Amino acid sequence: MTSSNVLLKPPLLEVAAQLFKQIREATDDGVGVTRESYGRGETIALNLLADFATQQGLLCRFDQGANLIITLPEQPVGQHIIIGSHLDSVPQGGNFDGLAGVVAGILILLHIKALPPSQQKPVQVLALRGEESAWFGKAYMGSLALLGKLTAEDLNLKARDTGQPLREAMTALNISIDKIEQGEPLIELANVAAYLELHIEQGPIMVARKWPIASVSGIRGNIRHNRITCKGETGHSGAVPRWMRKDAVLACAELLSHLDEHWRVLQQMGMDLVMTCGIFSTNSASHALSVIPGEVQFSFEVRSQDTATLEQFYQLMKSECQDISRSRGVEFVFDRKLYTAPALMSEDWVNKISMACEQLDIKTEIVASGAGHDAAVFANAGIPSGMIFIRNEHGSHNPHEAMDLKDFFLGVQALHIAIHS
Amino acid sequence: MTSSNVLLKPPLLEVAAQLFKQIREATDDGVGVTRESYGRGETIALNLLADFATQQGLLCRFDQGANLIITLPEQPVGQHIIIGSHLDSVPQGGNFDGLAGVVAGILILLHIKALPPSQQKPVQVLALRGEESAWFGKAYMGSLALLGKLTAEDLNLKARDTGQPLREAMTALNISIDKIEQGEPLIELANVAAYLELHIEQGPIMVARKWPIASVSGIRGNIRHNRITCKGETGHSGAVPRWMRKDAVLACAELLSHLDEHWRVLQQMGMDLVMTCGIFSTNSASHALSVIPGEVQFSFEVRSQDTATLEQFYQLMKSECQDISRSRGVEFVFDRKLYTAPALMSEDWVNKISMACEQLDIKTEIVASGAGHDAAVFANAGIPSGMIFIRNEHGSHNPHEAMDLKDFFLGVQALHIAIHS
Repeated sequence: MTSSNVLLKPPLLEVAAQLFKQIREATDDGVGVTRESYGRGETIALNLLADFATQQGLLCRFDQGANLIITLPEQPVGQHIIIGSHLDSVPQGGNFDGLAGVVAGILILLHIKALPPSQQKPVQVLALRGEESAWFGKAYMGSLALLGKLTAEDLNLKARDTGQPLREAMTALNISIDKIEQGEPLIELANVAAYLELHIEQGPIMVARKWPIASVSGIRGNIRHNRITCKGETGHSGAVPRWMRKDAVLACAELLSHLDEHWRVLQQMGMDLVMTCGIFSTNSASHALSVIPGEVQFSFEVRSQDTATLEQFYQLMKSECQDISRSRGVEFVFDRKLYTAPALMSEDWVNKISMACEQLDIKTEIVASGAGHDAAVFANAGIPSGMIFIRNEHGSHNPHEAMDLKDFFLGVQALHIAIHS
Repeated sequence: MTSSNVLLKPPLLEVAAQLFKQIREATDDGVGVTRESYGRGETIALNLLADFATQQGLLCRFDQGANLIITLPEQPVGQHIIIGSHLDSVPQGGNFDGLAGVVAGILILLHIKALPPSQQKPVQVLALRGEESAWFGKAYMGSLALLGKLTAEDLNLKARDTGQPLREAMTALNISIDKIEQGEPLIELANVAAYLELHIEQGPIMVARKWPIASVSGIRGNIRHNRITCKGETGHSGAVPRWMRKDAVLACAELLSHLDEHWRVLQQMGMDLVMTCGIFSTNSASHALSVIPGEVQFSFEVRSQDTATLEQFYQLMKSECQDISRSRGVEFVFDRKLYTAPALMSEDWVNKISMACEQLDIKTEIVASGAGHDAAVFANAGIPSGMIFIRNEHGSHNPHEAMDLKDFFLGVQALHIAIHS
C-alpha cells in the first residue's frame, strides 16, 4: 500500500457531519429537505459547498451547465477521474440522497491535497444539478446536458411548482442553452477517465443483508409518463345509474389493479420489474363527494434492468387502457413517453470497488441498483463508470432516510482505495 | 277549474328566462357557475332574487337561518305551503340545480298576486342556503338548521375552499347559532302545511323515457365519508421490491375495484344502490413520479332508497378495508360517518302532482329521486312534502346541464295546479 493509500483521517468525518448538518438546515422545509432542480434549494446547497471548498483551499468553478466543479488548486495533468453526484432532492426529501456522493468527493480531494504532488491522482468533484425527475418530470437533466443528450423537447418541460419551463430555469443560471440544443457536450469527454459515484442505497436490501457498503453492477432503466389523463363524464352521484356512468376513478382503479396482478405474475416468472403510480388525482378544481369523477390524472413508471421487459410491460399497460376504454366509455390520453435505458457499470470499476471493500474487511456482495443515477448517463456515453452504495434505512425520497456516518466513511475509504489501486 | 287555476301567462316565462340569465352571469366562474354554500355566489343569487321580488311588489325577508322568504304583500291567514329549493351550487356547477325551484315559486307568487284576495292560496317561497355537500362535506345544511337538526359537530365542519368552519360562515351572516346548537327549529313547524319542491332531474331517466315532468315518490338516502385516509409508506420507486411495498394507491385501487364488483353483483340481485368515489388524491405536497405513494385521501358515498342496503354496503366497504390493511400493510383512517335517511314524499302530494300532469295532458310516470333534496329533510320532519322533476340533459353538478324552459314552465303549471287542486 503506497502512502497515498493511507486511510482518510477521522477529522474528515467531522467535516462531513458538519457539511451534512449545515446543508440540511439551509434547505429544511419543515418536513424534510427541498432542493428544487435548477432552483432555490439546489443553488443554496451548491453555494454552501463552493464556499466551504474555497475556504479549504480547493478550486471551485461552475461549468457551462451551472454544475459545480471542485479541483485541487493545481490540477494534475492528464485524464481525470470525476467523483460526482447530484444536489437536488425530491420535495420533502432526504438529506443524503445525492449530497453524500459530493461530500465524499470533497473528503477525498481534501485527503489528496495533503499528499505530495507526485502521489496526487487527478480527481475532480462534480456537484450536478437536476437529477431528480420530481420537478420537471425528467431525470438526469444535469448529466444529460453535460453529455449533449438533453433535447429541445426536454427543455420545454415545465416545473411542477412554478410552471417555469426548464429552458428558462437554465437560462436564469447562465447555462449555454444553444450548445445543449445543438447536442454539444459541455465537457471534454476525452479528458474523463472515469465517473465514480457514491450514493445511499434507496432500497432495503443492504439493511436486510447487513452490508454497510457494496459495489454496484448496473442501474435499472425505466419507461415513464408524467401524466396520463383518464377522461370520463361527470354526473350527479345519486342520479346516474351504474350502466350509464363513465367513472374515471373506477376505470383507473381497474387499470391499476390489473397491472398490479400482471406485475405479481411476471415477477414470479423471474422478470426484474417494479411498477409505480406515484401521482393520482381527481380534478381538484371540480371534484366533490357527490360528483361522479369525470377526470383522473396519474403518473406511470415501470423499471427493469432489462430493456425488453420494460417495453413488454409498457405495451401491457397500453393494451389494458384500450380494453378499459371500451368497457367503461372512458378515454386515456398520454403525454410524452419518457425512456431511460438501463446501464452497466464498467467491469474494471465494479471489481476495483469490490476489492477495496475486501481490503477493508467488509462482508458484502455486488448489488444492482433499482434506482437511477447520473452514473447511468456517463456509462451509456461510454465513460467507464463505477458506483458504491451506502447502507441506508427507511428507503429514500422521504425525510426518514437514515445513513450511519460510519458506513458513509467506510464507503469514502473504499472509493479512495479503488481510485488509488 | 276555478279562475285561480287558469294557466300562468307566457310573459312569466320571459321573467324566468331573465332571472336565470342574470343569476348565471353574476355567478359565472368561467367554466360553470359557482355559488358557495353560506358564501359569496350563494349570497349574490339570494340578493338578486330579493331585489327582483321586491321590485315586483312581493315581500322579502331573511329568516333566522339567513334564507330568503318571499311572500305576498299581505300574506293570507292560516297555514302556508312552502315552495322551496336551494341557491348554492357545486364548484363549476350548473345554473338550474336549485335555482329552478325558487324561480318556479316566484312565478307562482306573481301569478297568485294578480288574483282576487279571496282566491289567493297561502304560499311562501323559500330560497334555502347550503344544500350542496360539496363545500362543507354535509348536505341539507340550510333545511336541517331550519328544522333544528343541524348538530354542533356539523357546525365545526370546514369549507373546502377557505377552511372556514361552518359556524363562522353562519355567524358572518347573522344566523342564530345558539338556537341551532340547542336544536331549536328556526321556523314554526305547525304553520307549515306542506313543502313543495320543483327540481331538475339529475339523472338521465326522464330524457330516455321522454317525460318532460314527473312526480317524485321518494328520495335516496346515503352514507358518506368526506375523507378516508389510506396510510402506506413512501419509498424510492426503483429500489423497494414489490413484497416490501406499502403502496397506498394500489391498496385503494384494489379496494375500489372490489367494491365496484360487489356493486355490480348486488344490483343484479335487485338492490337499489349507487357508489361513488368523487375525490381521490395522493398527497400533492409530496407525491412524485418516482416516489411510492405513502398516502391517499378519498371520499366514499353509497346511496339507496333502502336503509338496510345502505348499512350492508357500508359494512362491506369496512370489511374490504380490513382485508386490504392486512394483505398490504396499509391503514385506513375514517373521518366522521355521515348518514342521511331515505325519505318518502306524502302520498297525497305525489297524487296531486301526478294528476296535475294528467290535467296538462303529459305522458309521464312517478319516479324515484336518486339525488338528495331538501324535501327529504322536510318529509322526515313530518311535513307533508311533494316534488316535481323537470327533464334535464347531461346530468347535473356540471355546467352542461340543459333544461328546456318549456319543460320548466310545464312543471310550474303543474305545481300551480296541484296547489290549487
